[in-house]
This record gives sequence, structure tokens and C-alpha cells, in this order.
Amino acid sequence: MLVVMSHDATPEEIEGVVRTIRELGYEAAPIPGKQRTAVGLVGNDGKVNADRLESLAGVREIIHVSQPYKQVSREWRAEPTIIRLSNGTEIGGGQVAVMAGPCSVESEAQILGVAEQLRAAGATVLRGGAFKPRSSPYSFQGLGVQGLRLLARAREETGMAIVTEAVDPEGVDAVAEYADIIQIGARNMQNYSLLRRAGRARKPVLLKRGMAATVKELLLSAEYILAEGNPEVILCERGVRGFDTHTRNLLDLTAIPVVQALSHLPIIADPSHGTGLRAKVIPMARAAVAAGADGLMIEVHPDPERALSDGAQSLFPDQFSELMEQIAVITHAIGKEMAPALTRTPALVP
Amino acid sequence: MLVVMSHDATPEEIEGVVRTIRELGYEAAPIPGKQRTAVGLVGNDGKVNADRLESLAGVREIIHVSQPYKQVSREWRAEPTIIRLSNGTEIGGGQVAVMAGPCSVESEAQILGVAEQLRAAGATVLRGGAFKPRSSPYSFQGLGVQGLRLLARAREETGMAIVTEAVDPEGVDAVAEYADIIQIGARNMQNYSLLRRAGRARKPVLLKRGMAATVKELLLSAEYILAEGNPEVILCERGVRGFDTHTRNLLDLTAIPVVQALSHLPIIADPSHGTGLRAKVIPMARAAVAAGADGLMIEVHPDPERALSDGAQSLFPDQFSELMEQIAVITHAIGKEMAPALTRTPALVP
Amino acid sequence: MLVVMSHDATPEEIEGVVRTIRELGYEAAPIPGKQRTAVGLVGNDGKVNADRLESLAGVREIIHVSQPYKQVSREWRAEPTIIRLSNGTEIGGGQVAVMAGPCSVESEAQILGVAEQLRAAGATVLRGGAFKPRSSPYSFQGLGVQGLRLLARAREETGMAIVTEAVDPEGVDAVAEYADIIQIGARNMQNYSLLRRAGRARKPVLLKRGMAATVKELLLSAEYILAEGNPEVILCERGVRGFDTHTRNLLDLTAIPVVQALSHLPIIADPSHGTGLRAKVIPMARAAVAAGADGLMIEVHPDPERALSDGAQSLFPDQFSELMEQIAVITHAIGKEMAPALTRTPALVP
Amino acid sequence: MLVVMSHDATPEEIEGVVRTIRELGYEAAPIPGKQRTAVGLVGNDGKVNADRLESLAGVREIIHVSQPYKQVSREWRAEPTIIRLSNGTEIGGGQVAVMAGPCSVESEAQILGVAEQLRAAGATVLRGGAFKPRSSPYSFQGLGVQGLRLLARAREETGMAIVTEAVDPEGVDAVAEYADIIQIGARNMQNYSLLRRAGRARKPVLLKRGMAATVKELLLSAEYILAEGNPEVILCERGVRGFDTHTRNLLDLTAIPVVQALSHLPIIADPSHGTGLRAKVIPMARAAVAAGADGLMIEVHPDPERALSDGAQSLFPDQFSELMEQIAVITHAIGKEMAPALTRTPALVP
Repeated sequence: MLVVMSHDATPEEIEGVVRTIRELGYEAAPIPGKQRTAVGLVGNDGKVNADRLESLAGVREIIHVSQPYKQVSREWRAEPTIIRLSNGTEIGGGQVAVMAGPCSVESEAQILGVAEQLRAAGATVLRGGAFKPRSSPYSFQGLGVQGLRLLARAREETGMAIVTEAVDPEGVDAVAEYADIIQIGARNMQNYSLLRRAGRARKPVLLKRGMAATVKELLLSAEYILAEGNPEVILCERGVRGFDTHTRNLLDLTAIPVVQALSHLPIIADPSHGTGLRAKVIPMARAAVAAGADGLMIEVHPDPERALSDGAQSLFPDQFSELMEQIAVITHAIGKEMAPALTRTPALVP
Repeated sequence: MLVVMSHDATPEEIEGVVRTIRELGYEAAPIPGKQRTAVGLVGNDGKVNADRLESLAGVREIIHVSQPYKQVSREWRAEPTIIRLSNGTEIGGGQVAVMAGPCSVESEAQILGVAEQLRAAGATVLRGGAFKPRSSPYSFQGLGVQGLRLLARAREETGMAIVTEAVDPEGVDAVAEYADIIQIGARNMQNYSLLRRAGRARKPVLLKRGMAATVKELLLSAEYILAEGNPEVILCERGVRGFDTHTRNLLDLTAIPVVQALSHLPIIADPSHGTGLRAKVIPMARAAVAAGADGLMIEVHPDPERALSDGAQSLFPDQFSELMEQIAVITHAIGKEMAPALTRTPALVP
Repeated sequence: MLVVMSHDATPEEIEGVVRTIRELGYEAAPIPGKQRTAVGLVGNDGKVNADRLESLAGVREIIHVSQPYKQVSREWRAEPTIIRLSNGTEIGGGQVAVMAGPCSVESEAQILGVAEQLRAAGATVLRGGAFKPRSSPYSFQGLGVQGLRLLARAREETGMAIVTEAVDPEGVDAVAEYADIIQIGARNMQNYSLLRRAGRARKPVLLKRGMAATVKELLLSAEYILAEGNPEVILCERGVRGFDTHTRNLLDLTAIPVVQALSHLPIIADPSHGTGLRAKVIPMARAAVAAGADGLMIEVHPDPERALSDGAQSLFPDQFSELMEQIAVITHAIGKEMAPALTRTPALVP
Repeated sequence: MLVVMSHDATPEEIEGVVRTIRELGYEAAPIPGKQRTAVGLVGNDGKVNADRLESLAGVREIIHVSQPYKQVSREWRAEPTIIRLSNGTEIGGGQVAVMAGPCSVESEAQILGVAEQLRAAGATVLRGGAFKPRSSPYSFQGLGVQGLRLLARAREETGMAIVTEAVDPEGVDAVAEYADIIQIGARNMQNYSLLRRAGRARKPVLLKRGMAATVKELLLSAEYILAEGNPEVILCERGVRGFDTHTRNLLDLTAIPVVQALSHLPIIADPSHGTGLRAKVIPMARAAVAAGADGLMIEVHPDPERALSDGAQSLFPDQFSELMEQIAVITHAIGKEMAPALTRTPALVP
């Protein structure tokens, strides 16, 4: 930690910083420069109260050299976290796992039909919203627990694992009961009550990056979940807020290698929300895999023109099959494997 | 609503849009241009399912002419909403109301001491965090219900109204029991479960703009509260995410007149979080009032150098008194009034 | 300067950094921490080649404690730079100077007519584009030298000083011949050939902040002008790129006190471009003055409905008069003075 | 074009808009809605003066349905523009062309040495700055014309084509004399004098996207070059300004398919500036190719630890060779070809 003094800080103010650092139990190393002096704090063990130093007279800013997160960092655990789902899919260990499905669960026919198409194309995790956070209170908000039951039904039929979103602490329990992965959406990335509850669940958590969240803030939110005892967190890049209205969000694929250098947690990409445009999903899904993503989350709808939400960014099932072929080639090109397709015979087939 | 076709949309695709609009029960008005055709939807009553149109073949984009929010808009209610607190302060009706206090409630001595200083300087609403959303799980998270009790104590002593944050649905009930205004923080602006619960509370709600929220999204979040039956919402501009690290956030003061043109709800500014720098709070508080803000929220700490959170952006009590004098002059200069100071004799004085 | 090492940097790599710092002629102060070591460079005189250190093995990043600009900084010159125009207006010394006029010079009648109205309302500097940088090659690009002559004519008539934009190195000479202040537009803030030429001109330069420029980059661009020998630079905040399309740009008024703390140069605000909306110009002009701006630049057109450019953000002359009254009150409220109005009798009056 | 009226626009104001549209020679189609009325302008031929309509009483905003650019658009020319360099490399026609080299030309040994390594690895275009735009006036600004001569020398030796930046109108002529492609940097994307001069040159132009430029603004800047008669423009995505300081810029790879849908011009990516971090260049170069880029621009330095600029983002030659192998696999995976490597024997070999 470096305490940077104002250029007109007095010797007494510099001495005040040195004294406070010593009171806190650390060593102080003043670094004079032509414009200003900085004071290094030697021996930082991650427990320094920076607020106190930042408020001292003559201090311009505090520069943090260490990161504020711990358990999510590569320093804490060098080898990658691998999350193994009950259907055999692994996330984080050299495989590329594909999660796909409609924005919302709308009916039994819709979800069972599309799940079978997705399984046949090679996806191994089914997504579908039962509780939908919508910008407007007047938009369709999802089928709720009924949607969760339909997802569980689709799992029985296809063998696909289920990922679906929880939007409040009580919802975490409901989702954990029916699903394989609990999703925390971008709007709730800093909803700490929700994160803590997810940290006490016994299921993996998919944590989406907030619209204006830095990588550091994303990792700190993941830290909330690990700090409660749940080590199985999958991060997800889904686009940040940008200034160009050509796309819905600005997909920040560089965040993938940045996260992988800082953390042992797996990270996937969601090019459907990341672009908001059906025609851009395929190239950006390819790009995400090429950038090293551990998986993808893709919106597919059996009939996008009649979808109750996000129709314009949902792929047709045929486009999804084509996408799977393309990403398989890239996956192999960079020395990774697609998560093995599910061969399980659907339960209802006699 | 305008449905813009791709430049190479076929006549059949244009006809498909016209037909769908008619099926939905509206009139369609094609508008041909040199590059492309657009189709106007005539008679929009705010219930059109745009997702359905957006997914039709040949459609490039949907342009919304009407706004998706209703009850928060000036169209719904032309005269400004005025929120009257039990201590007489009015927010939204030509007065400038000042809310001030420490980031966190830390102890009885701290909160009672600073409250009396703030009241003497002219503030009429006391802020102080009891439940603190913090980026790191290892930071101080607030005193919880004990903090709420100390705030209520400070109200008895000074007559100031209380505003404090709720961070989850259950917390709304606790805050509503002790405080006069329930604050929803920027990180929770799109936490819809929380918004709905606040919409069912019988207390005014202070809703802070999210870090990457557009004005439209802020108004839609307020709509969630009104839609549940609570018409008393105060909006708050507190800075959006910017690219320049000189300040913690980028205070978007233009949002104040923008909101006032679109909505009847009052809007205040928080220059403490908006800048993150004590030395910028005074000029930006002045600027917010000059821009037409209905009030201010300011962090003041009796001893910022020892604050448990946000010390570097908290004013000293003396600075706050100076600020109050400056904004009083600007308030009068633009034809408004400061909310009347509280003259109530503290209860403990014999 | 602080050289931050990777968490897995070897002792040899740390030693390599220490050795290189010493080779460069400075002292090195290692600062070990729990996660990683940093190495302070002691005695930085502003000439360190950071690129060389940044590339060494084991280095994660370089943190600059000193600023890369010199002559523009408060460290270089503590008292504010005051720019005195020939008509008596002072910019930077406690006065608020108002520059106003149409986006483009369109005709003699237009510019002479509006200039007289502006002078009467109290503006002392006339703006008007002769060379117009336009996003589209097919938009009106200005009258060129003929526009400069009309501006000079308006100065004779009214006594107002002239500010107008130069868009290329040769244009600087033409503008310097006719105008009192050479404007460098936001799009050219990092056009270094243009900055250097302006640095060799004998006229003050108004430098607008680029759309995505940090305050540091703005100051570095000003440094180019000072480094060539021209100390008279006026900075201008005119809005940065934002994500909300409600306004054309995001006016960053906090940049005003931020610049004033870092630099001795005056800074004004342009709420016309900063908001892009006529109805927001008045509140944001008031806010800019309240934030401490040394002046304003405002677009006013005698007939905005027929303007060749920027009509929708131009004030009507009557609105401008009203604005001048409002900002005068705020100027006095914060202890400053309006630049004295011009009383000179127009030359054509017999 | 759609003229959206304020919700409280009077029938007279709506009638005023209809009348003005007819005066301008177009048809008007009013589209009433529940909240407000909009008026469609039928028959837009791209010459409507929107400023005039935007300023009329009662108008809230103008929505442009057609794009303001012409010659760069897919509507103007459906088939892709292919730029053929004299050494056989094609840009834009299904090949992936790689441009590589140091940030700055520093010496004959440096540029000749690295050029030969790059050619051997398969690059066919050599980059290297002779005129360097630098944020600080005190940084190394390039060797100027001497640098251009060294680049020409390297072309003789290796057969590589040359791309280098021009920073002012006169510099365009010098660069056009020595180089094969004239680069316009991000900071000059809206330097229209420079664009016009490049439009009159007889060499292809590489136009980099500005830091805060929308895709529409990038295309409008390209339109300046085409409008002057030069149809050979290569666009380049090199990262936009983001809020996360983990990377130098935010590489917006989605812009690649977005541009390809709107324009016939080729677009390449520069992951070196786009990330600013050596370790992220390889994954993001792979991602750019997977997203469909027509080429790459990569910084490579023979000894990054001693580079005079951008050392920390320059690859080592060995890393570049590895990168070339990886992107070749992805290029083939998506059905494209690498531009054929140069087999020409260096001229100086006896």
C-alpha cells in the first residue's frame, strides 16, 4: 500500500502518516520525488484500514498494491477450480461447456421441445428463466415455481443440467431445490444479501458481471459467495454498458483472460445478452471460445418471433446447431475439448 | 412506435409487419424512404408487445416513441409530487431539503453528537447507514438494528427526520419501523424484489440511480414502487461510472433537469458519493442546487480521520456549516427556499 | 514512481528491477507485502523512462505518483493564470466571462444582429464558427475566411472579443489574424500538429476537452501549447461521451474543481454542447458557475429554427438575457464578479 | 425520418411540422399515439435539413431512420471492397492479413532485424511509427522522414508492404511517397483536414476507430475519404475507452460483425492497443479472427524491454510466431485463408 501525499504536504503531515502507519503495526518507507512524497506501507497483510490513512491531513490518495479479494485469487489457489455437474459436464477444466435455452420458460411444450433440440445439438446445460427480472413492472415476469418444475421435467427427459436465476434470498432456496446451478443476474451482482444466501446453498452459482462492474468488483462479489463456504462459482461476462447503441451491451471479451490471470474460477461468456442481436451471436460466441472462455450461455427459442421476452436476440434451433459445429472446430484448434454430448435416451421413449 | 425495416427487406416482409400490426389491433402507416422503409404503428396505447414485432423477418429495429413508464411521468401527473415529512420538511415543492450525516452509524456518541451539529447548521434530515452494502465481504457492514435504534434516538433528541438504507426485503420492514425515509442504494436500483417490498411500505422511499443506469431505467425502477401503491418516491443522482479515475464517480447533474422534465417526482443529488472527494463536495453541492435539485444528501462525520467507512469523502462539521451558508445564497438566487431549520429544543435539555 | 511486481515474481526479478533503477541513476526502495512486493523509485525528477521498467520480467505494473505534465501544473505555478483580452475582459482572475454566439457564422446580418443583442445582454466575447468540423462530409462546413471577416466586422461594431475555431495548422494563422482567441475543438484535442502550431501563435488558445479525454490527457494537451511558448491557454469542459442518450454528451462539471486543483489555467464550461438541449442550457450554465467555472460558452442564434447547424441547442436571444441575469446572481453569491459589460457605442451610430 | 412531438404539443404545432415537411418537398404522415404524436417524413432522399425540423416548436426529437453515410454503406455497394497491395496481399476478400512490427522505428538494425523475423513468421505487412502522436510533448516523437526511409529499406529487404501513420496534412504526402498504406490514428479519426488529404492520396488508408467513436462516426469519417475520391479504406477496431483500468482500452470485437453488416469496407483489429497488455494480445488476436476480422495489426519488438514506446504491449518475436500458428488454425476453422506468406529472397542476399 502506498500513501501518496499532496505536493504541498508539510513535513509534519508526512510524519503524521509515518506515525499512523507505525501505530497500525506496520513499517513505513517514505519515497521522496520531485513533485511529491509517497509513503510505502511495508508488510501489508491485507488488514490495513485504508479509510483511516486516506483521511489524514496532506494525503492525496491511497494506492492499493494488493487486491482486496482473497479466496477467489490465484494467490490463494493456483490450480483452476473445476465444477462437476451430476450429468458429467465439467466447467473450468479444459472443456468448453455450452448452456442454452430460451430466455423464459413459457410452457411445457416449449421447454421440452427446445431442450431435446439443444441436447441433440450438443448442449449439456439447459437455461430458462422462471423468475425474470425485467426493467418494467408491466413486462412478463416469469412462471415462478411452475417454471422450475418444467425445467426439472426437461432434465428428466434429456439429462441436461439446469441453470436458472434466483432474484431474492428466498428464491435461492427454491432454485437450489430444482436446479443444478443457481444463476445471479447482472442487476443483482452487488445484491449482497442474495450473494450471501447463494454462498450458503449447496449448489454451484453462476455469477454474471454487472453492467458497470470492474473485474475487481466482479471478483469481490464472488468473494462474498466463497466467504460463506460455497467454493463453486462460475463467472460470466455478458457485456458492459457502452456508448454505442448499435449493440445492446459492449461484450468485453478481454475480461476472460484478465479474470483467468487473477482467479482460479471458471469464466464463461453470454454473447446473447452481450450483443442483443441474433446475427452477432454466432461470431461473438466463436470469439469468446477463441479468447479462452470455459463455456457459453446462449439464448435459443423454438419460435423467436413469438417469444415472450428477448426474441430478437434468440437463435433459431437450426442456427444453434450450426453454431455448435463452428465452436467445436475452434475449441479443438486451441487444444480444448467440448464437454461430451449427452447420449442418455430420453425417459419417455418406450 | 416505429418498426424500421432492413434496407433489403422484401415487400412481403413489409407486408408481414403491416399484417402483424393489424392483428395486434392497431393501424399501420408505412413510411418509405430512399434507403429503407419504416412502418408506423398508429394508436399505441402502451400495451404493444414489441418483442413480437422485433423478431419478424426483415425488421432491423423497433423505435419506441412513447416511454415505457406511466405513473412516474409528467403525462400521468402534471404537478410536482411533494413529500411532507413529519418534522415539516417538504421535498419537491420549491424547497431545498438537506439530508446529512455519517456514512455509517458507529456509536451513540458519534451519531447524537453529529446530529446536533447538523441540526444547528440547518439540516433537517439525518442520514446514517445501519445496514451497509460494501464491495468487500471483509469490510465493516454496519450495526444493523442497533444502528436503527441509535438513529431513532437521534431523532428524539434533534427533531431531524431519519433516512437510512434497506438492503433486502426483510430489512425494508425494519427500516420502515424506525426511519422516516427508506433508502434504496445504487447497487440495488434494479433489485426488483426490494423495490416491490418498498412499494408496499407506508414510508417515502429514496431511490438512488444505479452506476450505469439511464434516466429511463431509473424511472422504470421508480415505477415498480408506484405500481405497488407507494406514490412517495424521491430520486437521487449520485454519479455514474466514468472513465476518469480523478473522481470516484461522474456526477451527472444534467440528469436533474432531465428528470424534472420527464417526471413529477422530486430529485436530489448526493455530491459525496458523486465525487468521492471531500474538496469537491462543496462546489458540486452548490452546482446541484443551481441546477435545480430539490435537495442534497451530504456525508458529514464528526471525525473523518477515524471514520469506519467513506472517511475521505466526509465533510468536517465546520465545512458543512460553511456549505449550508453557500447553498442558502444560491437557493434564494434562483427563487427557492431552504427547508425551514428545526428550532425544536432537544428533548434532553431540562 | 512505484514498480509493482507480480505475486510470483522471483527474488531475482525483484533484484533486476532494483538494479535497473540504480542504473537509471535513482534509488530503489523495496516494499514487501503479503501478496506481492513493490519497489519505490526514490528521487523521481520526471525523466524516468517508465517503458523500460514496465517491460522487465516480473513487473505487473508501474504506478505514477508524479504527474507527466509540468508547466500547466499548480506545482509549476501556484497563482492562477489570468488572460486579459484587449477589450478588458479577464479570464481566470475571479471574473466570470461569457462567450456567446451562433454555432456558425451564416451571414453579415445574422452575426452583426446577434452580436449587438449579446453585447447588450452583457456578453463580452463573441463566438461563431467559420471553419466547422462536422461529422458528415455532406453537412455545412462554414464560410471559411469570409466568416472570419464577418466576425472581425462584428468586433468593430460591438467591441466584443472574437473566439473561433481553427481546424488545421494553416488555419491557425488565419484565425490568429482575425480573432482574439483561437479555439481548438474537442475532436482535435489530441491533434498534436495543431496544438504545436497554436503554441507558436501570439494569441490565447481555448482548448476543449475531448469526448473521451481524462483530465490528465486534457492537461497534457495543454502542455503541448505551453511547451511551444504560449502560456495563455483556457480550458473548456464541454461534456464527455456518456451512455445515456437523453443528452448529447455528459457534462462533467466536477472536472472544473478537479482542474483548478491541479492547474493554474482557467477553465470554462460549454453547456450548449455539453447537453445538446436548449432547455437544459440555462440550469447547467447556472450549475457551471456555481461549481466555480471561470466563464461560459453559450450558443445563441437570432432564429434557431432556421440555423444551419446546432439549432436545437441554441438559445433564443431573449433566453440568453434571462440566463445572464440568473448567472449574475449566482456569481455574486459565491463572491465573484461578472466580466464588466461593454459600454462602447457601436461604431456605426453617428 | 420521424419527427417526435412533445406530449403536450398543440394541434397547431403538429400542423406546423406537417407544413414544414411539405415546404421541404416531402410528404408527411402523422402517427398519433396515446402519449404523443410523431410525424413520419415520407420519401427521404438523404437531403433533408433535420436541424430545421428539430428546432420547430413542439418537437421533442428527430429520429433518423436512414444513415447519414452513403458511399461506405452496403446499400451503395453490396460486394466487399478488396484492397490489393503490390506484394500480393489482399485485404477484405476472405483472407486474413497480418500487419506487424514495432510501435516506433528506432534504428536500421531494429527495423530490418524484426522485419525479417516477421516475414519468416508469415506477416506480409510491416508496421512501424515514424511520426508518433504521444500524449506528452516530452515523450519520443519518432524519427520522422528518416524513419520512413528505414521502412522503405525494410520493404526492399523483405518484400513486406509498409503501413505507417501520418499525423498532419503535409505528412500524408511524405507517407504516401514511402509507404503502401497511410495510417490515420485513433486520435485523428475526426481530424477532417487530415481525412480529406488522405482522400486525395493515391494509396490505401488504414483508419483507426477513435476512443469514443461510435460505429456510425467511424463510418462517417471513412466517408470523408471516399468522398474525396479514394475508395481504398481499411477500418481498424483498436479498443474504446472503458471504465475498467485492468486494460488500457476496451476492445470492442462486436464492432467487427456490426461494421461488416453496414459497410463493404474491410475491418481489422489491433489487440495490442486494444488491450495494452502483452499477455492478452494472443487470446484477443485469436478472438478477433474468430469474430471475422479481415486482418490484424500486432506490435512486435525485437527487445521489448528496451523499446522506446509501448514496450509492455509488444510481443517478443517468438510469441509472434506462436500467435501466427494459432490464428492460422482458427482462420482455416472458419473457412478463410491466411494471406500467402512472402517467399521473396531478401534483395541483399548475393
